[in-house]
Parts: sequence; structure tokens; C-alpha cells
Amino acid sequence: MTVTTAPCTVQIARIATPEHPFVTEHGAVLPVVEIAFETWGTLSPRRDNVVLIAHALTGNSHVTPHFPGDTPGWWDPMVGPGCPIDTDRYFVICPNILGSCYGSTGPRSIDPQTGHRYNLRFPYITVRDIVAAQARLLDYLGIERLHAVLGGSLGGMQALEWAAMFPQRVERVIPIAVGGRFSDQGIAYNEVQRRAIMLDPAWKNGEYEDGEGPATGLAIARMLGVITYQSDELMTARFNRREEARYTAWPEFLCRYDVEGYLHYQGEKLVRRFDANSYLYLTRAMDSHDLGRGRGGYDAGLARIRARLLGIGISSDILFWPAQVRDLVERLRRLGKDAEYWELDSPNGHDAFLKDFDQIGPVIQEFLDQP
Amino acid sequence: MTVTTAPCTVQIARIATPEHPFVTEHGAVLPVVEIAFETWGTLSPRRDNVVLIAHALTGNSHVTPHFPGDTPGWWDPMVGPGCPIDTDRYFVICPNILGSCYGSTGPRSIDPQTGHRYNLRFPYITVRDIVAAQARLLDYLGIERLHAVLGGSLGGMQALEWAAMFPQRVERVIPIAVGGRFSDQGIAYNEVQRRAIMLDPAWKNGEYEDGEGPATGLAIARMLGVITYQSDELMTARFNRREEARYTAWPEFLCRYDVEGYLHYQGEKLVRRFDANSYLYLTRAMDSHDLGRGRGGYDAGLARIRARLLGIGISSDILFWPAQVRDLVERLRRLGKDAEYWELDSPNGHDAFLKDFDQIGPVIQEFLDQP
Repeated sequence: MTVTTAPCTVQIARIATPEHPFVTEHGAVLPVVEIAFETWGTLSPRRDNVVLIAHALTGNSHVTPHFPGDTPGWWDPMVGPGCPIDTDRYFVICPNILGSCYGSTGPRSIDPQTGHRYNLRFPYITVRDIVAAQARLLDYLGIERLHAVLGGSLGGMQALEWAAMFPQRVERVIPIAVGGRFSDQGIAYNEVQRRAIMLDPAWKNGEYEDGEGPATGLAIARMLGVITYQSDELMTARFNRREEARYTAWPEFLCRYDVEGYLHYQGEKLVRRFDANSYLYLTRAMDSHDLGRGRGGYDAGLARIRARLLGIGISSDILFWPAQVRDLVERLRRLGKDAEYWELDSPNGHDAFLKDFDQIGPVIQEFLDQP
Repeated sequence: MTVTTAPCTVQIARIATPEHPFVTEHGAVLPVVEIAFETWGTLSPRRDNVVLIAHALTGNSHVTPHFPGDTPGWWDPMVGPGCPIDTDRYFVICPNILGSCYGSTGPRSIDPQTGHRYNLRFPYITVRDIVAAQARLLDYLGIERLHAVLGGSLGGMQALEWAAMFPQRVERVIPIAVGGRFSDQGIAYNEVQRRAIMLDPAWKNGEYEDGEGPATGLAIARMLGVITYQSDELMTARFNRREEARYTAWPEFLCRYDVEGYLHYQGEKLVRRFDANSYLYLTRAMDSHDLGRGRGGYDAGLARIRARLLGIGISSDILFWPAQVRDLVERLRRLGKDAEYWELDSPNGHDAFLKDFDQIGPVIQEFLDQP
């Protein structure tokens, strides 16, 4: 295994080689796996100050800037010197997840056995595969234990699997806006999104050329995603049925509403930065999330966890209803675990963990810093 | 205007002719409009026992069977002799809405001026247009006043517009699972559904041949619709992450979940019975729903209503959140109106008004029958 320092402080670790391949939960063999990652802060001599941040569906390793003028990250106010996740104190690492398109191996990577992109020949992967790849990365870096692992949404699924797959390695876990099992409703939303991508003729069964992918299908998928990341209250406050005077693309339908223009904008924005096949694979990985799968049931899966746990629910979340997080914590407590629940009261829906820093920051900081 | 008795007890009324055209809210002229409708019960000599049932997005005029062995309707247990809406007492009428594909004029009708289908040349229509066409139908039938008008979802939008457009003609109104303004979140869901239809290459800008329409796009639209008509609780109770062993269409993604097979089934079922262009136009009509539009604001729109009103919300509705119905009723009460709110406590989501007859039936019956 080798680590290459790439430009812009993204590092790439080759965590699987033909001699030491990566075998997925379902038995597929990946002869080469690379994981892109970024770090902040300094690893303590005892290597006991590591905080792993797990990113969500379309996220990447760039949580926060590395230097003045660096590109903004997706969780800027949360991570840095003196921030709730204090890089003067913690060594923070964020890996781009397996299957993503921000430097880690995924469906658009070249299959070394064929010299062509995997596309749909990439194996089906689960949250556990994503976490197993991260564990290999930490092995390579010589990091045995995590002071904490945290993340929201798909990131929270990873945090929970870290605690269940490697109970000895995780001291604290903070799943945010996520339960212990992805819901059927969530699977259903994901399936609609996948079908929109696959309906786009430009998808070509996954064999599109770079820059010629299923832009409309992916945009529609994102539009639906964005609805589920927000709330009725938030959308009403922001748009309030205001009409979009400029939009004339569909004159037969006359007036259009601002909320639609906003969704189109969000859809097109994602298309410029994300890959459609990755979207298919990573939504499928989300679907797989179930701490009980193959472990003798949900409670048996939960019983594996030894980490202290802080579950954060969001009052207006319609994708991961707060009751799902509360249920997770209550089950853990019934199993005698050290688990607590905190609910973020916010109209910002699922995305609140990316917005309400003033509220969420101190709660996370206190949990991380407690002795 | 002429009424033709069609087979199967569906009647067709020509409510607009070139000499007496139908002008939409936005000024488009339809030289011919036909409205399909069905009736049950007997019109009283004083014509004062009429109950108009307004159907929802993909509904039709066939509320309930007319004779033993007749096709089941979409609200069977609610309407009939001795039922909550008692056809021994009331003359019940249900018109297929303007823009639909069950016998009334819509985008797939022949434009008499060109001899071709309207398709996207059909004018944009609003809930008010749908109601104005129904009012013409009642004029033709010699019915001046409605004992009651009721419906759920888009049907409830019509019921409310009846009370606001023709306050003198409506004695009682029962909007079910609907507020006085369609939400931005609802518009957003509709827009995703429309975009899926329009992405399907078979849509051909609306110019598809019969039987060759955008089946996949319409199915995807319906899949999303179905999610919003149900609830997380219902889906969990029904599917609970159960895997669908038989499904092998996408082996790269390995296991699939029952909830997905269910959605595909629902999507395909709608494709066999509904037209894609009608779906586009009627979702746009839903989007238009706002009792305040062009009336000097929401409260001014509500102030027009003279009918007694019973607003029914559904506790688990995620498309028309019960708070929206409650807000409607509270505003009416502040305006001094005779309005009451009742909440159906059900896990069945938006669709509960099509399912929980035991609960909803007596409440509606009492409201209809009170002197």
C-alpha cells in the first residue's frame, strides 16, 4: 500500500492491491482500491486523538479549508482551530467513501483487469464495505482507535457501522439524522431517483462518456433528494407560492413557481459535480443500512456497540424522521448502553446538520470533549 | 348543449359549443367541452338534495357501482343506499374533471379547429376552470344549489373553490386532506413527477400515439406520487425492509426490496389506465390551488365562503400536512365562518380518505345529515 500526496491536500491511499484485494460484503473482489482522504490537526504521540468524519451521499473529503484561501468545505464552521471539532486538539480525518467520485475507487474507475471503466460491472457495495475500506485506511496510517466517529445521513450510517463492526476501535459515536436501519420510505425515494437516472437515454446502461452522462436524469434525482432534505415549513417560508416570472420554457403551462426554479438550479448544480453511476451505487449502499442484517436481528446488531453514543435527531426531518433516531437511542439504553438523544429543533429538515451550526456545534463539542 | 347517455351509465354533457365556448381563467378559448359524469339516487322535486363528489388526480366519475355486478368504484363503501352518503336521500353526482382522460375534454381530445389532438396545445387549466366546467354542467341539469360538495386532495381543492367561486350555490363543503393553498413542497413533488414524464423519449413533446406513451416516465411519476400518498409508518409496517427475492432485473445491485417491487407495480398499474399529458395538466392544475389568488389575499379568498365547512385532516399525511387543514379551519373561524376541523388518526397517510371508511364515514354522514 502506498500513500501519494495529491495537489490541494487530498491524499490518496491504495488500500487494496492484487496481492491484498478488497472483498466486499457480498463476495466481490476489487483488486485495487484507492481511498482519497484529507486530514487536519496533528496526530498525538499516543495516536489517541483521532476524529473520523464520515460524509454524506454526494459529499467528499473536503470538510473544511486547510489554509486561508483554500476552497470552502462542506462543514466549515464545525471543524478548525477553536471550532466545535477543534483541530488544535483532534486529528481529524475524512475519507471520500468507496463508490464515490471524488478520488476514491468507484464505478467510474478503471477496472485493472479490463482496462475499461467498471460502470455497472462495479460490485454492489454496502455501508459496511465503505467502513471496511476506511478501516484499512486507518490500519495503513497506524491508527488503531478512534476518539470519535461522526456524520450525518449516509455519514451517520457509516458512524454506526464503525461502532458495530469495530466495537474495540471506537470510543464515541455521533450518528446525526439517521437511525439504525434505513426505512422503506427512504429506499422508495432512492429507487425513484435511480429510475430517473436510468430513464435518461444519455445514461446508456452506465456506459456514457465523461461529460455526456445522464444530466437530466441526475438532475431530477437531485430535485427529489433536495425535497426530502428540506421541510414543508422551510419551503413555505422561502417560496410561499411565489411565481417565477422569468421562466418561459413551458409556455403551455404558463406560470411557474420559484420553488421549481430553485429545484432545477439544485439539480443542475449537482450534475456539474457528481457522477450518475456513483449516485446509483451510493443510494444502493444507503438502502443496505441495517445494523441488524446478518447479525441475528436489530437488537443483536445494536448489542455489538461499545462506544458512547450521542444520537442527534432533527425535528423537521422527513427523510430520517426524528422518531427513528430516538428509537435507536432508546433501544441502546434498554440494552444497557451509554446512549443519549438530543433533538435539534429546526425547520431546516434533514439538511439542518449542514446549517444549524450554532445549535449543533456546542452539543457535539461537549460530547467530544467530555473525559 | 346536449346530453348523450353513454354505455355503462356514464353520461356525457357538452357544456361548451362554438357558439358558447368555454373561456379558461387565463383567457384561452375551448370551443367544445364535454364533461363525463355519473349520478346516483333521485333528484328531489325541489332539487335540493344534490351532493357533488369531486375526484382526485387520477380518479374518474365512477364513485360506486350502479347495479349489482357493476365495476367497483373508488369510494364504494361511502356512497349507496344506507351508506354515509345515502343515495336513498341524496342525488349524488360525480363529474370527471376537465383535463382528465375518463371521458371529459382534455389534452388528448381532438381540437375541432385542427382535427388533431390538443396535446400540449391544450390550454393551461386551473382548479377554478375545473369547477367552472362543473358549474356549467349543473346549470344544464337545472341544479342551482348543492346540498354539499366534498372531495379529497385535488377533489378537496375543487370543493373549496366551489364554495369560494359560487358562495350562493353551496350549503356545505367538506375538504378532505387539503388546505386552502397548495404548498411549495407539493408543487415541488409535482414538478419532479412532470420532469420524469417529459424525460421519457416516448413522450415526444406530448405527441405520442395511443398506447405508445411515456410508460416508464409516467410509472416513475406515479411511484413518487404513491410515496407521498402513504406514510413512513405504513411502509414500515407493510415492508419492513423485506427483500424481494424474485427480482433480478438489476443483478449488479443484487438484492432488491419489496417496497420497490410494490412501487413498480403501482407505477405500471397507473400506466394502463391513465394518460401522461393529462397527468401533466392536472398536476399543474393542483399547483394553481390558492383560494387567495386574484382575490386580494388568502383571507379575502376565504371570506367569500358562506357554506358550512368541515375540514378533515389526516394525522400521517405528508403531502397535505394536517396542520394545513387545521390552519384553513382556524382562519375561517377567525373570519366568523361556520367551520370545524376533524382529524382522522390513521397511519395510512394521504390515501387514508380512500381507506379508513369506518372512521371517516360517520363523521361525513353526520355533517351531511344535520339540519
